[in-house]
Amino acid sequence: MGVVTTGPAAPGIRREHLHASVSDPVLDTMNFLNEVTMRFPDAISFAPGRPYDGFFDLDEVNAYLRRYLDHLAELGRSPEELRSAVFQYGPTAGSIREIIAESLHVDEGIVAEPESIVVTVGAQEAMVLALRALISSRDDVLLAPAPCYVGIIGAARLFDVRMATFAEGPDGLRCADVEAAVLEQRAAGRRVRLLYLVPDHSNPLGSTIDLATRHEVLELAERLDFHILEDSPYRLVSAGRQLPTLKSLDAARRVVHLGSFSKTLFPGARVGFAVADQTVVGADGRSGLLADELGKIKSMITVNTSSLSQAVVAGMLLASGGGAARRNGEAAKRYGNAMDATLRELEHRFPAQRRRAVGVEWNRPTGGFFLTVTVPFAADDRALERSARRHGVIWTPMSYFYPDGGGDTAMRLSVSYLSAAEIVDGVARLARFVDDELEG
Amino acid sequence: MGVVTTGPAAPGIRREHLHASVSDPVLDTMNFLNEVTMRFPDAISFAPGRPYDGFFDLDEVNAYLRRYLDHLAELGRSPEELRSAVFQYGPTAGSIREIIAESLHVDEGIVAEPESIVVTVGAQEAMVLALRALISSRDDVLLAPAPCYVGIIGAARLFDVRMATFAEGPDGLRCADVEAAVLEQRAAGRRVRLLYLVPDHSNPLGSTIDLATRHEVLELAERLDFHILEDSPYRLVSAGRQLPTLKSLDAARRVVHLGSFSKTLFPGARVGFAVADQTVVGADGRSGLLADELGKIKSMITVNTSSLSQAVVAGMLLASGGGAARRNGEAAKRYGNAMDATLRELEHRFPAQRRRAVGVEWNRPTGGFFLTVTVPFAADDRALERSARRHGVIWTPMSYFYPDGGGDTAMRLSVSYLSAAEIVDGVARLARFVDDELEG
Repeated sequence: MGVVTTGPAAPGIRREHLHASVSDPVLDTMNFLNEVTMRFPDAISFAPGRPYDGFFDLDEVNAYLRRYLDHLAELGRSPEELRSAVFQYGPTAGSIREIIAESLHVDEGIVAEPESIVVTVGAQEAMVLALRALISSRDDVLLAPAPCYVGIIGAARLFDVRMATFAEGPDGLRCADVEAAVLEQRAAGRRVRLLYLVPDHSNPLGSTIDLATRHEVLELAERLDFHILEDSPYRLVSAGRQLPTLKSLDAARRVVHLGSFSKTLFPGARVGFAVADQTVVGADGRSGLLADELGKIKSMITVNTSSLSQAVVAGMLLASGGGAARRNGEAAKRYGNAMDATLRELEHRFPAQRRRAVGVEWNRPTGGFFLTVTVPFAADDRALERSARRHGVIWTPMSYFYPDGGGDTAMRLSVSYLSAAEIVDGVARLARFVDDELEG
Repeated sequence: MGVVTTGPAAPGIRREHLHASVSDPVLDTMNFLNEVTMRFPDAISFAPGRPYDGFFDLDEVNAYLRRYLDHLAELGRSPEELRSAVFQYGPTAGSIREIIAESLHVDEGIVAEPESIVVTVGAQEAMVLALRALISSRDDVLLAPAPCYVGIIGAARLFDVRMATFAEGPDGLRCADVEAAVLEQRAAGRRVRLLYLVPDHSNPLGSTIDLATRHEVLELAERLDFHILEDSPYRLVSAGRQLPTLKSLDAARRVVHLGSFSKTLFPGARVGFAVADQTVVGADGRSGLLADELGKIKSMITVNTSSLSQAVVAGMLLASGGGAARRNGEAAKRYGNAMDATLRELEHRFPAQRRRAVGVEWNRPTGGFFLTVTVPFAADDRALERSARRHGVIWTPMSYFYPDGGGDTAMRLSVSYLSAAEIVDGVARLARFVDDELEG
């Protein structure tokens, strides 16, 4: 057999001949952050939005796999069927839909038929499926707050989907802004088909939509005929009572709920799901579920979600009473403590009078991984580089999360991956960096 | 918390408001096959293209996971790093690229830098990435043989990619047909960017491209400036010496090689990869690898491939000398025997004189899962239904694999999942079905 060698004149592919999504500046920004992180390995980093992995025990993986297989055996499946459940291609829509439906009931009070669920490779694939299904023409619009999670921007770029935004501040969105944005698109001859929301402890802002606004947004979706993509990965890793999900209030089936086990079980599984219980009616009068259509699209992207990952995720859920909440008490407490410590240290370094004087502010998230700090100077790549080099502290420029520009004087702090000591030290460094910038 | 209830007047989503890909007839055809299979559970089915799972041992999954973790420990990784390797988000391009590069060398004589590899959720995601990267305008064309694997048709539909085809018969493609198709697109003002090929024991035909034609196609790609997507999942599960991959002959880096472990290790892992060692040159003169661009797109679709699945796949490769070939000797023999038995039984039921008289033909694949039987009547859905109901035998209409129609009098037989006894009985049933159709 031969061996690959590069011909001397291999011309290369011109970048402008590749699809535009690979050159999208919003999706390229993270590169700089990664570079800075590599160059300053000793810096304390408020950048990564990763779950803490100290609670995870490698030795338990096999026990969870066995737990799921025992469950199948209890259901009367043969040893050959157990083997196939892990070995073979599985159903495109997933093999653990009943178990996920049960977890939604246990954890969230959501009653979802297993048939309305599609198991996906993380919530990211669920976003991709929903976007591909529901955006069908050049005049269809995806609406999202600015700033928003970079994954939804990426999914939109992938399909050349037109995206519109409305401003959201650190204290949460206002329904009037959503309505104005929808009407503005209508006036331009376009149609908002989907509104993307992270209602609880959002990434990047750390904001939460209050209960009244949840009802208002649902009513607006019904009145102005759009659907809502609800993405809420931080609820079960947040301490205290959470507001009801949009899906649990969704009498008119306007919500496609995106689920993720990346924060509650483990990201390495890459198991998420969509609840898509909307009826789809064909021209011939035949109807089915939106979930069926998402499944068709999934068959063109990943065929099915790893059977092995699904089995381990199912075993973890079965082993903790059917839901993910019960196994996340300790994690939620840890993240809550980290958030409290960060807010306390910010208060300590920037007492009320001082922060008013210099123009530093932050929000006070009730859960999740993120908070927003606003500063009176450009918190851009150059500032980040100075922060890392001179003060040994890294954060994420909020501007990274604006699809059309904005957020120039804000930073996102993530608290999920730091120890208590790192938070104390990190906020002190951040304060010295801010001082330096103010003096500079 | 609330509970979902359907409002009495939930209007439903009109199907024509969904993206066209969900209504594509080619992607809908499999539904009928699935229905027939469900309705006639006692029929012998030559339909499923699944690998045989008798060689897979559930008890070994944990051993493979440990094997990979031991490997990381030998490389000096800490216990925390081992935990993170399974638990956390991994690198978008994959965490086992070195091990896959080694397997390509051991199994295929392909020398690929780990940096040129992107680990994907099966070869299907690799197709999606390559298609999204390399098709950048409405005038870019994906060229494929007709018939072809339904997954590439699906990937094209997903991105509204223009697809052109050229005819391929059961005995393999001719380079002149490829060239004519490329030139025809040029004459129409369009540009073929990608040619999709399954060079070895193709799905659905079972055809193989001979060595001279491999060299010709590579030369053509260079001369007419297109890239080749090489998808070859059946090589290592086929007995005997295989022809060199296109990638191993690819001095000019015209080939993006798609890899799959679904046939050689297990489909439930959903681990595949792309080798994309092409240079991409920006307008600013900076260059990188096509693999980097595929990784960017992957970050918008699945973020990364299941770390757990990658770990088990890596452990399986490490446990069998670094490659997948060595562990597939027995499987290749089994599939080879199944193919031989099917050909023998066809010969037995349709001796030369008889088949010439009635107009029945088939090809003689040297490996893989599939062969083509041509009959002198319409082998369509209605014929399939009669075959299942009256004669208890199921096959796949070849027309399912034609994006623009064709293949009306051919059937695909898959031999991978049947026992020797089922093959004898199944071909006898098939012969009775053919007799019946000829008489009818």
